[in-house]
Amino acid sequence: MSTDVIGVYLPAELYTQVQQFYARQMGLLDAGLAEEWTETFTEDAVFDEPNRLDPLSGRDAIRVSARARADRLAAERIQVRHWLGMLDVRRQEDGSLRARTYALAMRTPQGGALEIFASVVCRDHLVPLDGAWAVRHRHIQHDGADK
Amino acid sequence: MSTDVIGVYLPAELYTQVQQFYARQMGLLDAGLAEEWTETFTEDAVFDEPNRLDPLSGRDAIRVSARARADRLAAERIQVRHWLGMLDVRRQEDGSLRARTYALAMRTPQGGALEIFASVVCRDHLVPLDGAWAVRHRHIQHDGADK
Amino acid sequence: MSTDVIGVYLPAELYTQVQQFYARQMGLLDAGLAEEWTETFTEDAVFDEPNRLDPLSGRDAIRVSARARADRLAAERIQVRHWLGMLDVRRQEDGSLRARTYALAMRTPQGGALEIFASVVCRDHLVPLDGAWAVRHRHIQHDGADK
Repeated sequence: MSTDVIGVYLPAELYTQVQQFYARQMGLLDAGLAEEWTETFTEDAVFDEPNRLDPLSGRDAIRVSARARADRLAAERIQVRHWLGMLDVRRQEDGSLRARTYALAMRTPQGGALEIFASVVCRDHLVPLDGAWAVRHRHIQHDGADK
Repeated sequence: MSTDVIGVYLPAELYTQVQQFYARQMGLLDAGLAEEWTETFTEDAVFDEPNRLDPLSGRDAIRVSARARADRLAAERIQVRHWLGMLDVRRQEDGSLRARTYALAMRTPQGGALEIFASVVCRDHLVPLDGAWAVRHRHIQHDGADK
Repeated sequence: MSTDVIGVYLPAELYTQVQQFYARQMGLLDAGLAEEWTETFTEDAVFDEPNRLDPLSGRDAIRVSARARADRLAAERIQVRHWLGMLDVRRQEDGSLRARTYALAMRTPQGGALEIFASVVCRDHLVPLDGAWAVRHRHIQHDGADK
Protein backbone atom coordinates (compact mmCIF):
# COMPACT_ATOMS: atom_id res chain seq x y z
CA MET A 1 0.00 0.00 0.00
CA SER A 2 2.76 2.43 0.83
CA THR A 3 4.27 2.04 -2.63
CA ASP A 4 1.00 3.23 -4.19
CA VAL A 5 1.29 6.66 -2.66
CA ILE A 6 5.00 7.25 -2.89
CA GLY A 7 4.94 9.14 -6.18
CA VAL A 8 3.67 12.52 -5.03
CA TYR A 9 6.11 12.75 -2.14
CA LEU A 10 9.87 13.25 -2.17
CA PRO A 11 11.92 10.12 -1.34
CA ALA A 12 12.90 9.85 2.34
CA GLU A 13 16.64 10.27 1.70
CA LEU A 14 16.17 13.60 -0.03
CA TYR A 15 13.53 14.86 2.38
CA THR A 16 15.60 14.10 5.48
CA GLN A 17 18.71 15.62 3.86
CA VAL A 18 16.85 18.91 3.58
CA GLN A 19 15.54 18.62 7.13
CA GLN A 20 19.11 18.15 8.32
CA PHE A 21 20.36 20.96 6.12
CA TYR A 22 18.00 23.40 7.84
CA ALA A 23 18.68 22.11 11.37
CA ARG A 24 22.40 22.61 10.84
CA GLN A 25 22.19 25.87 8.91
CA MET A 26 20.02 27.57 11.52
CA GLY A 27 22.12 26.07 14.31
CA LEU A 28 25.16 27.89 12.89
CA LEU A 29 23.27 31.18 12.63
CA ASP A 30 21.84 30.96 16.14
CA ALA A 31 25.31 30.15 17.53
CA GLY A 32 26.62 33.40 16.05
CA LEU A 33 28.82 31.53 13.55
CA ALA A 34 28.11 33.98 10.75
CA GLU A 35 30.99 32.90 8.52
CA GLU A 36 30.21 29.17 8.77
CA TRP A 37 26.54 29.94 8.16
CA THR A 38 27.42 31.95 5.05
CA GLU A 39 29.20 28.92 3.61
CA THR A 40 25.78 27.28 3.26
CA PHE A 41 24.97 29.75 0.47
CA THR A 42 26.36 29.60 -3.06
CA GLU A 43 28.82 32.29 -4.21
CA ASP A 44 26.10 33.88 -6.34
CA ALA A 45 23.31 33.51 -3.78
CA VAL A 46 20.54 36.08 -3.45
CA PHE A 47 18.86 36.74 -0.10
CA ASP A 48 15.57 38.53 -0.46
CA GLU A 49 13.93 39.96 2.66
CA PRO A 50 11.06 42.50 2.63
CA ASN A 51 12.86 44.56 5.33
CA ARG A 52 15.59 45.44 2.83
CA LEU A 53 15.20 47.85 -0.08
CA ASP A 54 17.32 45.59 -2.27
CA PRO A 55 18.07 41.89 -1.85
CA LEU A 56 21.54 40.92 -0.63
CA SER A 57 23.41 39.70 -3.70
CA GLY A 58 26.36 37.34 -3.43
CA ARG A 59 27.92 35.44 -0.56
CA ASP A 60 30.16 38.32 0.46
CA ALA A 61 27.25 40.68 1.00
CA ILE A 62 25.41 37.99 2.95
CA ARG A 63 28.47 37.42 5.14
CA VAL A 64 28.94 41.10 5.99
CA SER A 65 25.28 41.46 6.92
CA ALA A 66 25.29 38.27 9.02
CA ARG A 67 28.47 39.23 10.88
CA ALA A 68 27.10 42.68 11.73
CA ARG A 69 23.90 41.13 13.03
CA ALA A 70 25.74 38.50 15.08
CA ASP A 71 27.94 41.18 16.67
CA ARG A 72 24.94 43.30 17.55
CA LEU A 73 23.11 40.37 19.16
CA ALA A 74 26.23 39.39 21.11
CA ALA A 75 26.67 42.96 22.37
CA GLU A 76 23.02 43.05 23.46
CA ARG A 77 23.28 39.53 24.95
CA ILE A 78 20.28 38.28 23.04
CA GLN A 79 19.94 34.60 22.10
CA VAL A 80 18.05 34.28 18.84
CA ARG A 81 16.47 31.08 17.51
CA HIS A 82 15.22 30.43 14.01
CA TRP A 83 12.84 27.51 14.21
CA LEU A 84 11.89 25.97 10.85
CA GLY A 85 9.29 23.34 10.20
CA MET A 86 6.41 22.25 7.96
CA LEU A 87 8.92 21.52 5.22
CA ASP A 88 7.58 21.01 1.70
CA VAL A 89 10.16 20.17 -0.97
CA ARG A 90 9.72 19.78 -4.73
CA ARG A 91 12.44 18.40 -6.97
CA GLN A 92 13.12 20.34 -10.16
CA GLU A 93 13.97 18.76 -13.51
CA ASP A 94 17.63 19.76 -13.12
CA GLY A 95 17.87 18.02 -9.76
CA SER A 96 17.77 21.21 -7.70
CA LEU A 97 15.12 21.61 -5.01
CA ARG A 98 12.45 24.17 -4.21
CA ALA A 99 11.78 24.18 -0.48
CA ARG A 100 9.13 26.01 1.49
CA THR A 101 9.29 26.12 5.27
CA TYR A 102 7.37 27.86 7.99
CA ALA A 103 9.69 29.67 10.40
CA LEU A 104 9.27 31.15 13.85
CA ALA A 105 11.70 33.89 14.85
CA MET A 106 12.29 34.11 18.60
CA ARG A 107 14.74 35.66 21.03
CA THR A 108 15.59 35.53 24.72
CA PRO A 109 17.62 38.34 26.32
CA GLN A 110 20.09 37.27 29.00
CA GLY A 111 18.09 36.89 32.22
CA GLY A 112 14.87 37.73 30.37
CA ALA A 113 11.80 36.07 28.94
CA LEU A 114 11.30 34.27 25.62
CA GLU A 115 9.64 36.32 22.90
CA ILE A 116 8.36 34.65 19.71
CA PHE A 117 8.04 37.70 17.54
CA ALA A 118 7.32 36.63 13.96
CA SER A 119 5.86 33.91 11.81
CA VAL A 120 7.67 33.76 8.51
CA VAL A 121 7.54 31.75 5.30
CA CYS A 122 10.94 30.88 3.82
CA ARG A 123 11.20 29.83 0.17
CA ASP A 124 14.58 28.49 -0.93
CA HIS A 125 16.13 27.27 -4.13
CA LEU A 126 18.63 24.59 -3.05
CA VAL A 127 21.49 23.20 -5.13
CA PRO A 128 24.30 20.74 -4.36
CA LEU A 129 27.60 22.32 -3.30
CA ASP A 130 30.71 20.50 -2.10
CA GLY A 131 28.78 17.39 -1.17
CA ALA A 132 25.98 19.14 0.71
CA TRP A 133 22.96 21.30 -0.07
CA ALA A 134 23.32 25.06 -0.35
CA VAL A 135 20.96 28.02 -0.85
CA ARG A 136 21.11 29.74 -4.23
CA HIS A 137 18.07 31.91 -3.59
CA ARG A 138 16.16 32.67 -0.41
CA HIS A 139 12.92 34.59 -0.19
CA ILE A 140 11.54 35.55 3.22
CA GLN A 141 7.98 36.68 3.81
CA HIS A 142 6.73 37.90 7.20
CA ASP A 143 3.12 37.22 8.11
CA GLY A 144 1.23 40.47 8.53
CA ALA A 145 3.73 42.54 6.54
CA ASP A 146 2.51 44.76 3.73
CA LYS A 147 4.43 42.99 0.98
CA MET B 1 23.31 -1.41 15.06
CA SER B 2 20.60 0.64 13.39
CA THR B 3 18.93 -2.49 12.07
CA ASP B 4 18.46 -3.73 15.65
CA VAL B 5 16.22 -0.85 16.56
CA ILE B 6 14.25 -0.43 13.37
CA GLY B 7 11.31 -2.60 14.37
CA VAL B 8 9.48 -0.27 16.71
CA TYR B 9 9.67 2.70 14.36
CA LEU B 10 7.87 3.30 11.08
CA PRO B 11 10.07 2.98 7.97
CA ALA B 12 11.53 6.27 6.75
CA GLU B 13 9.57 6.30 3.49
CA LEU B 14 6.23 6.09 5.25
CA TYR B 15 7.19 8.49 8.03
CA THR B 16 8.39 11.19 5.63
CA GLN B 17 5.32 10.72 3.44
CA VAL B 18 3.15 11.65 6.40
CA GLN B 19 5.40 14.59 7.30
CA GLN B 20 5.02 15.86 3.75
CA PHE B 21 1.29 15.21 3.78
CA TYR B 22 0.87 17.52 6.78
CA ALA B 23 3.23 20.21 5.46
CA ARG B 24 1.23 20.37 2.22
CA GLN B 25 -2.22 19.96 3.76
CA MET B 26 -1.72 22.78 6.25
CA GLY B 27 -0.04 24.90 3.58
CA LEU B 28 -3.26 24.74 1.55
CA LEU B 29 -5.42 25.67 4.53
CA ASP B 30 -3.19 28.59 5.56
CA ALA B 31 -3.18 29.87 1.97
CA GLY B 32 -6.98 30.06 2.06
CA LEU B 33 -7.31 27.28 -0.54
CA ALA B 34 -10.29 25.72 1.21
CA GLU B 35 -11.40 23.58 -1.74
CA GLU B 36 -7.94 22.13 -2.40
CA TRP B 37 -7.51 21.50 1.31
CA THR B 38 -10.84 19.66 1.42
CA GLU B 39 -9.61 17.27 -1.29
CA THR B 40 -7.14 15.88 1.29
CA PHE B 41 -10.11 14.33 3.13
CA THR B 42 -12.01 11.26 1.99
CA GLU B 43 -15.60 11.60 0.79
CA ASP B 44 -16.84 10.04 4.04
CA ALA B 45 -14.42 11.90 6.33
CA VAL B 46 -15.41 12.94 9.83
CA PHE B 47 -13.89 16.06 11.44
CA ASP B 48 -14.35 16.10 15.19
CA GLU B 49 -13.60 19.33 17.06
CA PRO B 50 -14.67 20.05 20.64
CA ASN B 51 -15.86 23.54 19.63
CA ARG B 52 -18.67 21.97 17.60
CA LEU B 53 -21.76 20.32 19.00
CA ASP B 54 -21.61 17.65 16.30
CA PRO B 55 -18.64 16.56 14.20
CA LEU B 56 -18.55 17.63 10.57
CA SER B 57 -19.55 14.59 8.56
CA GLY B 58 -18.54 14.18 4.93
CA ARG B 59 -16.29 16.13 2.60
CA ASP B 60 -19.08 18.51 1.56
CA ALA B 61 -19.72 19.66 5.11
CA ILE B 62 -15.99 20.07 5.67
CA ARG B 63 -15.69 22.15 2.50
CA VAL B 64 -18.54 24.49 3.40
CA SER B 65 -17.09 25.08 6.85
CA ALA B 66 -13.56 25.63 5.52
CA ARG B 67 -14.71 28.05 2.83
CA ALA B 68 -16.69 30.12 5.34
CA ARG B 69 -13.70 30.28 7.65
CA ALA B 70 -11.30 31.23 4.83
CA ASP B 71 -13.65 34.02 3.70
CA ARG B 72 -13.92 35.38 7.24
CA LEU B 73 -10.12 35.39 7.72
CA ALA B 74 -9.60 37.08 4.35
CA ALA B 75 -12.16 39.78 5.21
CA GLU B 76 -10.46 40.40 8.55
CA ARG B 77 -7.01 40.29 6.89
CA ILE B 78 -5.69 37.68 9.32
CA GLN B 79 -2.94 35.26 8.31
CA VAL B 80 -3.42 31.97 10.13
CA ARG B 81 -0.76 29.28 10.48
CA HIS B 82 -1.29 25.70 11.60
CA TRP B 83 2.08 24.39 12.71
CA LEU B 84 2.24 20.62 13.19
CA GLY B 85 5.07 18.62 14.67
CA MET B 86 6.05 15.83 17.04
CA LEU B 87 4.56 13.32 14.62
CA ASP B 88 3.95 9.79 15.88
CA VAL B 89 2.55 7.33 13.33
CA ARG B 90 1.42 3.73 13.82
CA ARG B 91 0.62 1.46 10.92
CA GLN B 92 -2.62 -0.52 11.21
CA GLU B 93 -3.06 -4.10 10.03
CA ASP B 94 -5.04 -2.94 6.99
CA GLY B 95 -2.23 -0.60 5.92
CA SER B 96 -3.93 2.56 7.08
CA LEU B 97 -2.15 4.86 9.52
CA ARG B 98 -2.96 6.36 12.91
CA ALA B 99 -1.11 9.65 13.29
CA ARG B 100 -0.84 11.89 16.34
CA THR B 101 0.65 15.35 15.99
CA TYR B 102 1.07 18.32 18.26
CA ALA B 103 -0.21 21.51 16.66
CA LEU B 104 0.19 25.19 17.39
CA ALA B 105 -2.52 27.51 16.11
CA MET B 106 -1.29 31.04 15.42
CA ARG B 107 -2.40 34.16 13.59
CA THR B 108 -1.00 37.52 12.53
CA PRO B 109 -3.35 40.38 11.61
CA GLN B 110 -2.20 42.62 8.77
CA GLY B 111 0.23 45.12 10.29
CA GLY B 112 -0.10 43.47 13.70
CA ALA B 113 1.75 41.10 16.00
CA LEU B 114 1.97 37.32 15.98
CA GLU B 115 -0.29 35.56 18.45
CA ILE B 116 0.16 31.84 19.18
CA PHE B 117 -3.18 31.14 20.75
CA ALA B 118 -3.59 27.38 21.24
CA SER B 119 -1.73 24.13 21.71
CA VAL B 120 -3.69 21.30 20.17
CA VAL B 121 -3.36 17.55 19.72
CA CYS B 122 -4.51 16.25 16.34
CA ARG B 123 -5.31 12.54 15.92
CA ASP B 124 -5.90 11.37 12.35
CA HIS B 125 -6.83 8.15 10.64
CA LEU B 126 -5.05 8.28 7.28
CA VAL B 127 -5.84 6.16 4.23
CA PRO B 128 -4.49 6.14 0.66
CA LEU B 129 -6.53 8.10 -1.87
CA ASP B 130 -5.64 8.78 -5.50
CA GLY B 131 -1.94 8.13 -4.93
CA ALA B 132 -1.58 10.22 -1.77
CA TRP B 133 -2.61 10.07 1.88
CA ALA B 134 -5.98 11.44 2.97
CA VAL B 135 -7.78 11.97 6.26
CA ARG B 136 -10.70 9.65 6.96
CA HIS B 137 -11.14 10.80 10.56
CA ARG B 138 -9.70 13.76 12.42
CA HIS B 139 -10.02 14.42 16.13
CA ILE B 140 -8.84 17.72 17.56
CA GLN B 141 -8.25 18.32 21.25
CA HIS B 142 -7.34 21.76 22.66
CA ASP B 143 -5.06 21.87 25.70
CA GLY B 144 -6.86 23.38 28.66
CA ALA B 145 -10.36 22.77 27.24
CA ASP B 146 -12.96 21.02 29.32
CA LYS B 147 -13.40 18.04 27.05
CA MET C 1 22.53 14.18 -7.82
CA SER C 2 21.06 13.16 -4.49
CA THR C 3 23.70 10.50 -4.02
CA ASP C 4 26.44 13.14 -4.28
CA VAL C 5 25.31 14.93 -1.18
CA ILE C 6 24.29 12.02 0.99
CA GLY C 7 27.58 11.69 2.83
CA VAL C 8 27.34 14.57 5.26
CA TYR C 9 23.79 13.72 6.33
CA LEU C 10 22.54 10.83 8.42
CA PRO C 11 20.66 8.13 6.44
CA ALA C 12 16.89 8.58 6.41
CA GLU C 13 16.16 5.43 8.42
CA LEU C 14 18.31 6.56 11.33
CA TYR C 15 17.17 10.17 11.18
CA THR C 16 13.47 9.30 11.20
CA GLN C 17 14.02 6.78 14.02
CA VAL C 18 15.33 9.60 16.19
CA GLN C 19 12.48 11.88 15.16
CA GLN C 20 10.04 9.18 16.19
CA PHE C 21 11.94 8.50 19.40
CA TYR C 22 11.46 12.14 20.48
CA ALA C 23 7.82 12.35 19.39
CA ARG C 24 7.01 9.28 21.48
CA GLN C 25 9.25 10.11 24.45
CA MET C 26 7.82 13.60 24.88
CA GLY C 27 4.31 12.27 24.28
CA LEU C 28 4.74 10.00 27.31
CA LEU C 29 6.02 12.85 29.49
CA ASP C 30 3.26 15.25 28.45
CA ALA C 31 0.64 12.57 29.14
CA GLY C 32 1.90 12.29 32.72
CA LEU C 33 3.18 8.75 32.14
CA ALA C 34 6.32 9.33 34.21
CA GLU C 35 7.22 5.65 34.61
CA GLU C 36 6.85 4.82 30.90
CA TRP C 37 8.84 7.95 30.03
CA THR C 38 11.62 6.90 32.42
CA GLU C 39 11.97 3.60 30.55
CA THR C 40 13.32 5.62 27.60
CA PHE C 41 16.48 6.28 29.65
CA THR C 42 19.23 3.73 30.32
CA GLU C 43 19.72 2.41 33.88
CA ASP C 44 22.86 4.54 34.25
CA ALA C 45 21.45 7.65 32.56
CA VAL C 46 22.45 11.14 33.66
CA PHE C 47 20.02 14.05 33.33
CA ASP C 48 21.76 17.40 33.54
CA GLU C 49 19.64 20.54 33.93
CA PRO C 50 20.96 23.94 34.99
CA ASN C 51 18.07 24.37 37.45
CA ARG C 52 19.50 21.56 39.58
CA LEU C 53 22.60 21.77 41.75
CA ASP C 54 23.60 18.23 40.77
CA PRO C 55 22.51 16.22 37.74
CA LEU C 56 20.03 13.41 38.28
CA SER C 57 22.03 10.21 38.19
CA GLY C 58 20.44 6.88 37.32
CA ARG C 59 17.01 5.88 36.09
CA ASP C 60 15.58 5.60 39.60
CA ALA C 61 16.40 9.21 40.43
CA ILE C 62 14.96 10.33 37.09
CA ARG C 63 11.75 8.37 37.79
CA VAL C 64 11.24 9.84 41.25
CA SER C 65 11.72 13.37 39.93
CA ALA C 66 9.42 12.82 36.95
CA ARG C 67 6.67 11.27 39.08
CA ALA C 68 6.76 14.18 41.55
CA ARG C 69 6.54 16.66 38.71
CA ALA C 70 3.68 14.78 37.01
CA ASP C 71 1.73 14.68 40.27
CA ARG C 72 2.23 18.40 40.84
CA LEU C 73 1.07 19.27 37.32
CA ALA C 74 -1.98 17.00 37.66
CA ALA C 75 -2.90 18.62 40.98
CA GLU C 76 -2.59 22.09 39.43
CA ARG C 77 -4.46 20.94 36.29
CA ILE C 78 -1.73 22.17 33.96
CA GLN C 79 -1.17 20.55 30.55
CA VAL C 80 2.51 20.76 29.67
CA ARG C 81 3.93 20.23 26.16
CA HIS C 82 7.55 19.69 25.26
CA TRP C 83 7.90 20.50 21.57
CA LEU C 84 11.17 19.37 19.98
CA GLY C 85 12.44 20.18 16.52
CA MET C 86 15.41 21.27 14.43
CA LEU C 87 16.97 17.85 15.01
CA ASP C 88 20.67 17.44 14.19
CA VAL C 89 22.11 13.94 14.71
CA ARG C 90 25.68 12.73 14.38
CA ARG C 91 26.61 9.05 14.45
CA GLN C 92 29.54 8.14 16.68
CA GLU C 93 32.16 5.51 15.82
CA ASP C 94 30.59 3.04 18.27
CA GLY C 95 27.18 3.39 16.59
CA SER C 96 25.69 5.57 19.30
CA LEU C 97 24.20 8.94 18.37
CA ARG C 98 24.72 12.53 19.48
CA ALA C 99 21.49 14.47 18.97
CA ARG C 100 20.83 18.17 19.39
CA THR C 101 17.29 19.50 19.33
CA TYR C 102 15.67 22.83 19.91
CA ALA C 103 12.81 22.59 22.39
CA LEU C 104 9.93 24.84 23.34
CA ALA C 105 8.44 24.37 26.79
CA MET C 106 4.79 25.38 27.02
CA ARG C 107 1.81 24.91 29.32
CA THR C 108 -1.92 25.51 29.36
CA PRO C 109 -3.82 25.63 32.65
CA GLN C 110 -7.32 24.13 32.62
CA GLY C 111 -9.60 26.83 31.20
CA GLY C 112 -6.64 29.17 30.69
CA ALA C 113 -4.37 30.46 27.95
CA LEU C 114 -1.34 28.88 26.33
CA GLU C 115 2.02 30.11 27.62
CA ILE C 116 5.22 29.26 25.75
CA PHE C 117 7.71 30.01 28.50
CA ALA C 118 11.16 28.80 27.43
CA SER C 119 13.38 28.07 24.47
CA VAL C 120 15.76 25.27 25.31
CA VAL C 121 18.56 23.32 23.64
CA CYS C 122 18.59 19.59 24.41
CA ARG C 123 21.75 17.58 23.79
CA ASP C 124 21.40 13.80 24.10
CA HIS C 125 23.66 10.80 23.86
CA LEU C 126 21.45 8.03 22.47
CA VAL C 127 22.17 4.30 22.59
CA PRO C 128 20.17 1.24 21.53
CA LEU C 129 18.19 -0.43 24.33
CA ASP C 130 15.75 -3.32 23.95
CA GLY C 131 15.22 -2.68 20.25
CA ALA C 132 14.71 1.08 20.51
CA TRP C 133 16.76 4.19 21.20
CA ALA C 134 17.33 5.37 24.77
CA VAL C 135 18.96 8.36 26.44
CA ARG C 136 22.21 7.70 28.25
CA HIS C 137 23.00 11.36 28.87
CA ARG C 138 20.83 14.45 28.51
CA HIS C 139 22.01 18.02 28.84
CA ILE C 140 19.46 20.84 28.90
CA GLN C 141 20.33 24.49 28.38
CA HIS C 142 17.78 27.31 28.72
CA ASP C 143 18.16 30.35 26.47
CA GLY C 144 18.84 33.44 28.55
CA ALA C 145 20.00 31.52 31.64
CA ASP C 146 23.30 32.40 33.26
CA LYS C 147 24.91 29.04 32.67
